[in-house]
Parts: sequence; C-alpha cells; structure tokens
Amino acid sequence: MSDSEIPRLIGLDWGTSSLRAYLLGEGGRVLDSRARPWGIQHVPDGDFARAFAVVSGDWRIRWPGLPALAAGMIGSAQGWQEVPYVACPADAARLVGGLRRIDSGDGGCLHLVPGVLDAGALPNVLRGEETQVFGALRLFPELAADALLVLPGSHSKWTAVEDNAIRHFSTYMTGELFAVLRDHSILGRPARAQGHRPSPQAFVRGLELAREGAVAGRLFSTRSLVLTGRLDAGESLDYLSGLLIGEELRCALDGLGGACPPLVLIGDGALCERYREALGHFGVDRVRIVEEAASAGLWRIAEAAGLLAATPDIPTRSANHV
Amino acid sequence: MSDSEIPRLIGLDWGTSSLRAYLLGEGGRVLDSRARPWGIQHVPDGDFARAFAVVSGDWRIRWPGLPALAAGMIGSAQGWQEVPYVACPADAARLVGGLRRIDSGDGGCLHLVPGVLDAGALPNVLRGEETQVFGALRLFPELAADALLVLPGSHSKWTAVEDNAIRHFSTYMTGELFAVLRDHSILGRPARAQGHRPSPQAFVRGLELAREGAVAGRLFSTRSLVLTGRLDAGESLDYLSGLLIGEELRCALDGLGGACPPLVLIGDGALCERYREALGHFGVDRVRIVEEAASAGLWRIAEAAGLLAATPDIPTRSANHV
Repeated sequence: MSDSEIPRLIGLDWGTSSLRAYLLGEGGRVLDSRARPWGIQHVPDGDFARAFAVVSGDWRIRWPGLPALAAGMIGSAQGWQEVPYVACPADAARLVGGLRRIDSGDGGCLHLVPGVLDAGALPNVLRGEETQVFGALRLFPELAADALLVLPGSHSKWTAVEDNAIRHFSTYMTGELFAVLRDHSILGRPARAQGHRPSPQAFVRGLELAREGAVAGRLFSTRSLVLTGRLDAGESLDYLSGLLIGEELRCALDGLGGACPPLVLIGDGALCERYREALGHFGVDRVRIVEEAASAGLWRIAEAAGLLAATPDIPTRSANHV
Repeated sequence: MSDSEIPRLIGLDWGTSSLRAYLLGEGGRVLDSRARPWGIQHVPDGDFARAFAVVSGDWRIRWPGLPALAAGMIGSAQGWQEVPYVACPADAARLVGGLRRIDSGDGGCLHLVPGVLDAGALPNVLRGEETQVFGALRLFPELAADALLVLPGSHSKWTAVEDNAIRHFSTYMTGELFAVLRDHSILGRPARAQGHRPSPQAFVRGLELAREGAVAGRLFSTRSLVLTGRLDAGESLDYLSGLLIGEELRCALDGLGGACPPLVLIGDGALCERYREALGHFGVDRVRIVEEAASAGLWRIAEAAGLLAATPDIPTRSANHV
C-alpha cells in the first residue's frame, strides 16, 4: 500500500434524503465511497448509531482510530444530535469552532459540522451546503476572494463568498415548489395524466417568460396554454420548471445589482447543466460546475480542525513511508 | 301569491366544488336557494342530469316551462357538456351568443353560460366568474364604465371591465399555492404539527415583506423564522398567507402602473375582508365587497338572452296581476 492509499479520514455527507460515506486518503483523495438511501428521515428504526456502524464499521475496524466527520442535516434537530448554527461570516475556523464531537456508541466518535445562520434582515439557515462550499474553495482557491456559489436543489442556496468566508446566502425553494405543484396542483395534472415528455424548448419558453417578471400572475399559463392547445400536456412540466427556475434567477440576479462575481454551480451534474443553460438566458455565461464538492469540503474542515493529525493508530503509515 | 313571488328563472352556480341552485323571481329576487356539495368532480355517479333533477326537479314540476340557466365549470370539458369560450372583450351580448342549450334528459332543458378566453400575450380563461362579474355590474351599474373586479380564491381572477365588457383578466393561483404549501411542503410542517393559530399580526408581517418584492427568495423565511424562534409555529400559516396574497397584490397593482380604477371584491365575505385589509396595506383604500353576485349575474344573462320572456307556461301570472 502506497502512502497515497492510506486512509486518513471517514467523511459522511448525511442529508435529508441520502447518506454518502467516503474513505479519504492523503489530500482528500477518495479511496472508497458508499451511498445508502438513509437520509435522516429514512434511517432504519431511526437508529443513527447503527446506520453509522453499517456504512463505515468495517473501515473503522480495519483502521482503528480513523477520524470521522459528518456534515448535513444529521446535525439538525431531526438528526442524531443538534449542533447549533454558527454565524456569518463563516470561515473554516468558525466552522471548526462549532464542531460537535459525539459518542458513536461503539467506542468510537463522530464529529458533526455545524450549519450556518445568516441572521440578516430575514434569517437564513443551511446545513451541509457550507461543507460543499468549502470543498469548492479547496478545489478552486482563486474563488475564495469573491464568488457566488449556487447549490441548486429542493432548497437552492445562493452563497456569497468573500475573503475565504461565507458572507451571506439566500434560499429559493424552487425544487420543492416544483415538486408540490407537479404532484398536487392543477398545473401538474395534464402531465400526470399523459406522462412527462422532456422538452428543452418548453423549458426555455418558461425561462423567457419568467425573465419578464411577475411570475405569480403567469404560473397559471402552464394550464391555460395547454387548455388552448398552445402547449403540449407532456411538455408542460418543463415549461413550469423554466418558469420557476427563471423566477429564482431573476430574483437572485436582480439582487446583485448588475455585477455578478464568478459563479459556480455545485451539485448534481444534470441539474447544474440545467441551471447553466438558464443562466445563459439571463446573460450569465461564465459558469463553472463542481460536482463532487462534499468530500473535498469534509477533508478541508477536518484539516482545519487538526483531526487528520490525530491519527496515530494507523500502523502501516511510517512503515510504508520511505 | 303576489307578482314578485312568481318564479321566473332557475339559476345554477355549478362550480368545481359545489352546486348552488336559485329560484329567482321578478328582478332577480331570490325566492329560494339550495346548496349541494356536488361540484363537477363530486356529482354522484357523475350523473349531471340526475343531480340537476334532484336539486331543481320539484321547482320545474310545480312551474313547468321555467327556464334554467347554469354558469361555471359545468360547461367545461370535465362538466356536463363543453361550451366553447367566448373572447374578450366579452359583454353580455357576447355571452348570450355563446350560450349552449342542452337537453336535461327529462323533457326539459338547461342553458349553459360560456366561459371567457383572454387570448392576450398569454391566454387566460375563466368559467363562472364572468357571471359573477355581470351580477356585480347589475347591482352597481356605475362600475360598468371602468372598474377592476377581483374574485379571490384558489385561482384569483383580476378582471378589468370597461364599457360594459370584460376587457382582460389575469389569474393568480394564490389559494391553491397556499393549500399545497400548507399541506405538502416543509413550510406547512410546523403548523401541521402544532396546529394553526390565527394571527392578524403574522398576516400583516407577511404582507409587508411581500410588498418589498422578490418573494421567491423570501418564502423560506416562513421556516427560518420559526427555526430561529422569531415566528410562532402556529402563526406561520398566516405569515405564509400574507406573503402569498402580498405577492398577488404587488404583481397585480404593479401591472396597473399606478392608477387603480374602482376596485370591487367578489366572493366569500371573510376572504374578501382579508383581501380588503391587504389592499389597504398596499395603499388601495376604496374597496367595495359584493358577496352574492352569482344569482344577479344569472338573472342579468337570462334577461339579455330573452329567456325570461319565454315563460308562457306560468298560469298564475296574468290572473294575479291587477
């Protein structure tokens, strides 16, 4: 086993809908990874300790003393143990200051990354995204001075980074809004009845309309265009998606007052591509996509916390290191 | 029986969720009325003819030849028979031109009022509201020259009337959006768990925030304010209601460019009061509420259609008229 293959950290990205475990080697290199559908609402029997043991127990037996760090909703009131938010501006040191060490119940321990609170005029909170943001900054250090990191999803987060810290952020419930309208409203009915047919054209049509503003009075066009034969029922969901993503972009970009710092999309590749296309229609063309930011962020925070140094029990290290 | 007690028309307000039947005398006076939860999606066995017979059969037996007129979703593709929309500008004559006479299956007949299509840049459609609008104009003829008639609800309609005709209208899905977010999203969860507690203050707080614009990025505050202890969980639904109604008002009033014609709210009294309060916060203070517009509208349209003259079978009329 070469030095670069020696595990240094177990990192967990433990969110609402899924649990992803990484075995990380020197420099944050991913040596192994596993995914389970054990988001905090779906952990079997609500037994977090057992889920942790199942997903990473063999790693911990093989490499005793390997530190473990988890980010995401696992640190929320509905998670394993609630970890108080740290305030903006949140740099790596502040995240480290808010780490919570918990007993994993099998003789080991797990460190939980705190979420971040932007108290601003209206409060805003996130858990897990802070780790992805610091992962992206680790991968692209030039962004740390001034950048806008966008994490599209059920609750899209628009995170403004300055001087190596999260300065403030906003939440757009675009993904959840789309899902409830698709599944429970009259707007989703045509596609529920006839089946969804992907349509990039319908998506752009929705985007362009949203760009003009006042989406509240235009949402209903998702239905009226179908009723009047001017939009295909199967394509109506992509039109709706365009309207909602367009409204997110319009509001978020308006808030910047014309000057957009370097913009990075973080997350699922297909969804990021959708946002990149949408941003292009709003005149933002220089967009970078980062898909695997969580493991890099876990490494970055563990490093800042000095957790990596505290791995004296790895017996093979000095022997193999020539 | 005095002349004013002689029935002249059976009017039906037959919508998505309910069926209301009116027995109307001279001048549109309501002699009797009945309500059934037989909206077009809930008609027993989908048997529209039988529902019509049950709700009004005894009236028709007692007064043979009494004309019957129905407005609302009963004329939609999901109703008894689809009646094509008439186009804007829609005056009473155009509605009359679009009436559809159908056989009621028991030797009688029923006339269906068409819906209205505003083809505009984006199509907009309504069914039933046109009749309430003409009812309000019958009750307050001075509005016919220039007024804005607003019908709050699942799909709020903002109807611009000029020169006795519906010129154009917009749809805001405020009520449906509120319901799906309350019942199916994370925003409704605190109140679902703890129970709703009415709060006029929380409603106003939501309104005032929406007034500043960019609600897409502020919806999530319904959750983050609760999370941070700055909004009571039980009061969060009224806050959300304020945000959504506020967004409707902001968009609709912005679209007027500063000049708001006389504004009339039509519909359920409590909901109209809620909108009146909200409008006050947006600087629109002269607002009239009309609760019972449907029966007046049915009478107005029947009159314009000459249906009332076609009641030669009422034997008591000339005898009692001295």
